[in-house]
Amino acid sequence: MKISEDFFLKDIISIDQFDKRSVEKVFATAAKIKKTPVKKLLKILSGKVIALLFFEPSTRTFSSHSAAAKRLGAQTIEHQNPMQTSSVVKGETIEDTMKIIEQYSDAIVIRHPMIGTAEKAANVVDIPVINAGDGAGEHPTQALLDAFTIYERFGTLDNLTGLFCGDFRYGRALRSLLKLFSMYKNNTFYLLSPEELRLTEEDFRLYKNKGLNLIEINSEKEIPSYCHFWYWTRIQKERFKADKSKKILMPILSPELLEKKGNKKMIVMHVLPRIDEVDKRIDKDPRCIFLTTQAKNGMFIRMALFSLILGDRR
Amino acid sequence: MKISEDFFLKDIISIDQFDKRSVEKVFATAAKIKKTPVKKLLKILSGKVIALLFFEPSTRTFSSHSAAAKRLGAQTIEHQNPMQTSSVVKGETIEDTMKIIEQYSDAIVIRHPMIGTAEKAANVVDIPVINAGDGAGEHPTQALLDAFTIYERFGTLDNLTGLFCGDFRYGRALRSLLKLFSMYKNNTFYLLSPEELRLTEEDFRLYKNKGLNLIEINSEKEIPSYCHFWYWTRIQKERFKADKSKKILMPILSPELLEKKGNKKMIVMHVLPRIDEVDKRIDKDPRCIFLTTQAKNGMFIRMALFSLILGDRR
Amino acid sequence: MKISEDFFLKDIISIDQFDKRSVEKVFATAAKIKKTPVKKLLKILSGKVIALLFFEPSTRTFSSHSAAAKRLGAQTIEHQNPMQTSSVVKGETIEDTMKIIEQYSDAIVIRHPMIGTAEKAANVVDIPVINAGDGAGEHPTQALLDAFTIYERFGTLDNLTGLFCGDFRYGRALRSLLKLFSMYKNNTFYLLSPEELRLTEEDFRLYKNKGLNLIEINSEKEIPSYCHFWYWTRIQKERFKADKSKKILMPILSPELLEKKGNKKMIVMHVLPRIDEVDKRIDKDPRCIFLTTQAKNGMFIRMALFSLILGDRR
Repeated sequence: MKISEDFFLKDIISIDQFDKRSVEKVFATAAKIKKTPVKKLLKILSGKVIALLFFEPSTRTFSSHSAAAKRLGAQTIEHQNPMQTSSVVKGETIEDTMKIIEQYSDAIVIRHPMIGTAEKAANVVDIPVINAGDGAGEHPTQALLDAFTIYERFGTLDNLTGLFCGDFRYGRALRSLLKLFSMYKNNTFYLLSPEELRLTEEDFRLYKNKGLNLIEINSEKEIPSYCHFWYWTRIQKERFKADKSKKILMPILSPELLEKKGNKKMIVMHVLPRIDEVDKRIDKDPRCIFLTTQAKNGMFIRMALFSLILGDRR
Repeated sequence: MKISEDFFLKDIISIDQFDKRSVEKVFATAAKIKKTPVKKLLKILSGKVIALLFFEPSTRTFSSHSAAAKRLGAQTIEHQNPMQTSSVVKGETIEDTMKIIEQYSDAIVIRHPMIGTAEKAANVVDIPVINAGDGAGEHPTQALLDAFTIYERFGTLDNLTGLFCGDFRYGRALRSLLKLFSMYKNNTFYLLSPEELRLTEEDFRLYKNKGLNLIEINSEKEIPSYCHFWYWTRIQKERFKADKSKKILMPILSPELLEKKGNKKMIVMHVLPRIDEVDKRIDKDPRCIFLTTQAKNGMFIRMALFSLILGDRR
Repeated sequence: MKISEDFFLKDIISIDQFDKRSVEKVFATAAKIKKTPVKKLLKILSGKVIALLFFEPSTRTFSSHSAAAKRLGAQTIEHQNPMQTSSVVKGETIEDTMKIIEQYSDAIVIRHPMIGTAEKAANVVDIPVINAGDGAGEHPTQALLDAFTIYERFGTLDNLTGLFCGDFRYGRALRSLLKLFSMYKNNTFYLLSPEELRLTEEDFRLYKNKGLNLIEINSEKEIPSYCHFWYWTRIQKERFKADKSKKILMPILSPELLEKKGNKKMIVMHVLPRIDEVDKRIDKDPRCIFLTTQAKNGMFIRMALFSLILGDRR
């Protein structure tokens, strides 16, 4: 369901539900929460219970939702591995599990390896459902936190130049982010990835038609020096079953590359976790904000969503 | 230990501890909690810590206890799989684990695959222990929530006609419920199950002698049309090692059966999880309350028990 | 970093950071917390979020930290098995995991099977890190709770005679405790262990040089009757890969041994879990406090540390 001004009791399944007004309402709420004293926040969701159902491993997304709920004074029911610890092992359907959890909680955050599961869940329950990643599908809260991090730095989501590097085929976070950006004007994004992991032609045309100026490049040499941000991703090995005889060459984010192709005002982001595609000597560079500001904004965006969806309406 | 009026700091191990007075005190407390504004409830167990030790997979029972504690303002210590994550892997006995957890908490909720474990636990610790299912033993809080759901609908637990369908040999919830009903008068229950899963002769006689009018039937055709409730269970495959060459025929709960043998005032319950013994087209029928009212009452009954056992005495 | 008077925002990695003043500040704080009404404690860490990252199975240490945080009004983010449920399975380094969790929380408690991990963690994050056991390394909070239990009983940590029995080679708790005691004067400790599990010569000399009067004995017969405390440990089978043809003979703590070699004023402690090295008939003896006072002090010591590290400075 489309969200415009009113988030109250709405599901968050896809970036498709958002328009510029709703995106910016999330950002304004997150910015306000960042400035609010910690103890004042505890009243916002006092008495609420939020269920976190994570059918896939997660540190970041699980922990940031858990912390977000608790920092607003809510409590959580947590299942970190329901494949092993819940009635799912007895053969229960996801729909039944959701209906039951609905009876105990005020909202459900779900991560699941199968595309479409969050929407399926939202269709069977009346309380709000937040999609925390559904397989190769979407990851809307990640897109919001990434966009918020850029917005916070540059004050706009229009007229930007960005470099995206990595896996555009299986990376759900990236796809959700491109969708979000296609609501905005005059953005040029350079895409650098191994050939096997490029956007599908269909996706490429889709985002093009929505107004994104996408430029595929073939090597680090073609990166323009005036990017506002670089956005790196790992190769989702767990989803990608490549011909193993073929080595996938992934561009490496290194201090040397940043020296050669970067600029002073830019920021460097990563969807995390990172494996070998980042040279860790780069961590000390203050432009690299993936382990700090970007991660912390993950918590604030989730706090913003929780408070908009479940907080008392004034 | 028998409970009559006073639940304070008592264990809840078996339905045998209850009499009509204590059962109805739980029901009255649950009914009152259902009507109390959410934020008012948070004071009842503020400052209390309840340990949830689940040595067996569970969604419903785990989550409803977790939510019940938190909705009363308590906090929890949670072990969802202590076989893998705790000192049990180092060879510690259940008695030692319980003694240790006792030092940190105000009450312990335990689920365990071995019959008698909850009682064993209660014998070694001084804080209250709640049995959340001990193997093929008992499941007293499930029986209370089931009976409460019937009581809430019909205002009584006397003079009822019910159909029980499924597994009477390994289903602990059902056995606890029959025990509870045998405190009440003039109840007639039709029992429909595959031959291999009928009540043992011993159990059959036991409940008969306690005053339950039990009638075993052999097919759906014999279901009387005037039941107050139908109560379905799944076959506990994980406990039941049948001759696999023999197929167990389980009666299916379907819209057609409900049309043919049901009536307007009845309710349809299920102990959940359900597998193949329910035709899901039935879910929309408002008489089917297993995914809604019955499940939600699970949380309220646990809230009632927690508040009676741990709440401040006025 | 050395702690002397001021714990605020400090890491707790090793007993080496402590001096007598800081040890006794922890004890005084724990003693005060023990006497404070439960509801009054909830304000101390209200609004704080503490992450519990347990990369190794634990009942006691995990649960006591969880309860300690919650009894002070804090909330927790819990990962009981991050090897299976977090981004660690995707190949993320411990440093990255820590940096991310830092963004969401006010302190991190970490247990990890590899020596040095807690320190490594503390080096990469700015929030306080508490070492809850790092492989065969240290277990400073266990040493503090053990010493507090002795101090509480005898009013001093000087001029004591103790018997240590068990595994001095792989037992991290014991090593941390000997370090703590070496700040104090005139203590004589008898050490009884299978030959393979004795202190290394290096360790033996180290503690000797620090002023501990250590006496290795070869059998139960040599235990002096005037010990203030006995301190038993299990053999850490999971760390110890012995020649399996050789049986390790471990002294058994039994009522008979206590009758023969004990005295009325002593206390009997154990680091737990216990396996076969304790004859359970001894549990009823009030001098055995490992399942009661010693365990409970574990929670109070962690409450003291949390409140000193994170509580508002008055």
